[in-house]
Amino acid sequence: MITYDEAKSIVVAAGSAYALKTEVIATADIAGHVCAEDIDAPISVQPFDNSAMDGFVVRYEDVVQTGEDVPITLKRVMVIAAGDAVPDVGIKFGECAQIMTGAPVPAGADSVVPVEYVSMDGDEITFTQVVSQGSHVRKAGEDFQKGEAVLKRGDALGAQHIMALATLGVSEVEVFIKLRIASITTGKELVDDLSMALQSGQIYNSNEPYIKEALKAFGAEVMSCGTVADDLDVFQGKLKCIMNNDVDIVISTGAVSAGAFDFVKEALENIGAEILFHKVLARPGKPILCARLPNGTLYFGLPGNPAASSVGLRFFVAAAMRAMRSQEVEKPQYAKLMTPFSKKKGWRMFLKAKTESGDDGLLSVDLFAGQASFMVSPFLQMDCWAVAKEDDSALKVGDIIEIYPLYANF
Amino acid sequence: MITYDEAKSIVVAAGSAYALKTEVIATADIAGHVCAEDIDAPISVQPFDNSAMDGFVVRYEDVVQTGEDVPITLKRVMVIAAGDAVPDVGIKFGECAQIMTGAPVPAGADSVVPVEYVSMDGDEITFTQVVSQGSHVRKAGEDFQKGEAVLKRGDALGAQHIMALATLGVSEVEVFIKLRIASITTGKELVDDLSMALQSGQIYNSNEPYIKEALKAFGAEVMSCGTVADDLDVFQGKLKCIMNNDVDIVISTGAVSAGAFDFVKEALENIGAEILFHKVLARPGKPILCARLPNGTLYFGLPGNPAASSVGLRFFVAAAMRAMRSQEVEKPQYAKLMTPFSKKKGWRMFLKAKTESGDDGLLSVDLFAGQASFMVSPFLQMDCWAVAKEDDSALKVGDIIEIYPLYANF
Repeated sequence: MITYDEAKSIVVAAGSAYALKTEVIATADIAGHVCAEDIDAPISVQPFDNSAMDGFVVRYEDVVQTGEDVPITLKRVMVIAAGDAVPDVGIKFGECAQIMTGAPVPAGADSVVPVEYVSMDGDEITFTQVVSQGSHVRKAGEDFQKGEAVLKRGDALGAQHIMALATLGVSEVEVFIKLRIASITTGKELVDDLSMALQSGQIYNSNEPYIKEALKAFGAEVMSCGTVADDLDVFQGKLKCIMNNDVDIVISTGAVSAGAFDFVKEALENIGAEILFHKVLARPGKPILCARLPNGTLYFGLPGNPAASSVGLRFFVAAAMRAMRSQEVEKPQYAKLMTPFSKKKGWRMFLKAKTESGDDGLLSVDLFAGQASFMVSPFLQMDCWAVAKEDDSALKVGDIIEIYPLYANF
Repeated sequence: MITYDEAKSIVVAAGSAYALKTEVIATADIAGHVCAEDIDAPISVQPFDNSAMDGFVVRYEDVVQTGEDVPITLKRVMVIAAGDAVPDVGIKFGECAQIMTGAPVPAGADSVVPVEYVSMDGDEITFTQVVSQGSHVRKAGEDFQKGEAVLKRGDALGAQHIMALATLGVSEVEVFIKLRIASITTGKELVDDLSMALQSGQIYNSNEPYIKEALKAFGAEVMSCGTVADDLDVFQGKLKCIMNNDVDIVISTGAVSAGAFDFVKEALENIGAEILFHKVLARPGKPILCARLPNGTLYFGLPGNPAASSVGLRFFVAAAMRAMRSQEVEKPQYAKLMTPFSKKKGWRMFLKAKTESGDDGLLSVDLFAGQASFMVSPFLQMDCWAVAKEDDSALKVGDIIEIYPLYANF
């Protein structure tokens, strides 16, 4: 059996070697995608000096002496609204312009005096309070300089990036296509239709709908390939059929352990797949199998227990997805353990846990009672996986441990 | 001007009073929705005692004396696979059954011995290692007890809840409908088409695509109602038109400050809206306006600056959305400030910031240089809003402050 770190390296290497397709999409649609190009600012922003206030724009030297006892009167020579072109003529000695938020500053002027600091009599504007030079003027290029780096290949994109790219007039972005993942569940005990009553010996299939939604949260499109009862031939046929489709990853759950009906490895060998690893010193998730199908597609055989398949998705499949999209290996967060925990040395354990942010700035983490890999109830409350490492044996309250949020911050 | 807390109370009260519709949807589709009913477990899970291992299931009393020097041989009377019905006959004195992971435990048997601990000779199974009573048996009801509370009205739903509900055979859930939000941007300086070159005095409209995507992340469906140049009549007509549609919230950006073209308040008064507040002691976001339209729809007039409209969405609109969906008021997280910051007393400030999780378990937070409300570049890196409160004046490195993740954890 290999260690978690060894297995992870294999997954990351296989993911990095995979040539994921890219596509060009509208900036408005990039949230949930990963950037596939380096983008530099095509223009400077602000595109022109403009006012940050509703007020009067002046030459600073004309008002520098202003005070309540030293009112200064300037002549309003124009009114400039947002959306107006930069005026053809500038502001000369003794002149000012009324200006709205966002409106362009005319040549000569350099400072905006808020409307509250003046009194108006027709075009005679009297200033009674001083401002500092450059006040309330947003300078051209203050936010972005033309040519500066804005996005890099591998950046995960959200609404905030739409804001920045729209500001810059970037209308399209090259992104990695949404990863296409095929998912098969195995087990004749599984009932897919949740509205059917269970017969003796049956359980509901929770893996299929979970995998579909969790992988969506990690930024993939999932094709459900149904449930295979414990039958090698049917399973092998399904794999061949999937290979004719254009998918990037295939996932199965169940039938990877040591039981008489655990046919996944045999099926993979039969169709000529290369087994990259089978079984990892990790719990839950020990029986996980990783392979490369003859067509190059990455294959993850996850254990059938819900927590084990969830760990497989979160720590192996997500790592492969990140590598395929040129994203760096995910960094952990750290939290103070509030529940003592004992484990066997040599194994990495992933623990169902919940964080709390204390008003001392410390993140603390509680472990749930139901850590067995078949226990689903903690999923109702958990918000992260806490990690007990290979060398740990007796973790104490107050120990700082690694945690990973429930969904990959893809 | 009212304080942030006063404004927030008004928003939460208005949201709580709003009767948001609900709908019943398939469990597979609940991620991103908020639960609108209390759900109790309809069955116990596990539904039956079953094996957590591939091995042999025995009566504990038959093997209690087992050891390497004291091998004990039992007769295999059946092989039970996952999906098999619970056997009609139980295990009697001197008998055992081969059992697969997930397969039902027959009556009489109570413990599973892993396959590695036995040697097999036809149906003669010899046990050489002892296990403890109840080993590797998942007990009926160990994960969920029939009738126990599983979900509550107001719970935000993700893939993990799909897993739990599927396990329990809950096929449908009553959820709040996705909030329907209409969004209008204002300003004749705005260019909506990002592929068009800017003319003098123009800027690109970044608010429209940002609002659309950010509100999607908060769990809403957004109807873009286009951009209105600075024209009171056109704007008023648009509001009336929107009121004929079935929307829960209307948002506008721009035209709520003190400029000559700031017509939003006038338009709202003209159509008979009730102004709940206008202007809050908060930066960015000071000019924010909240109203109730004559048809009961909540209205948020957000300032036009990107950071100010973003704060308005994150702290006011999201608070209203939570209240409408019976969610509790959001709690802050806490982090150690790494950047000194000075401000005027009396104002609440929302600061563009980025967190880092230290390996001492402390969350630290850096503030960006570009805090002005027109500065968009920090959005490329920020992951949270840091809060400087009304009473703060000089925040120091090491102070613990409140932070809120960039998107509401809805």
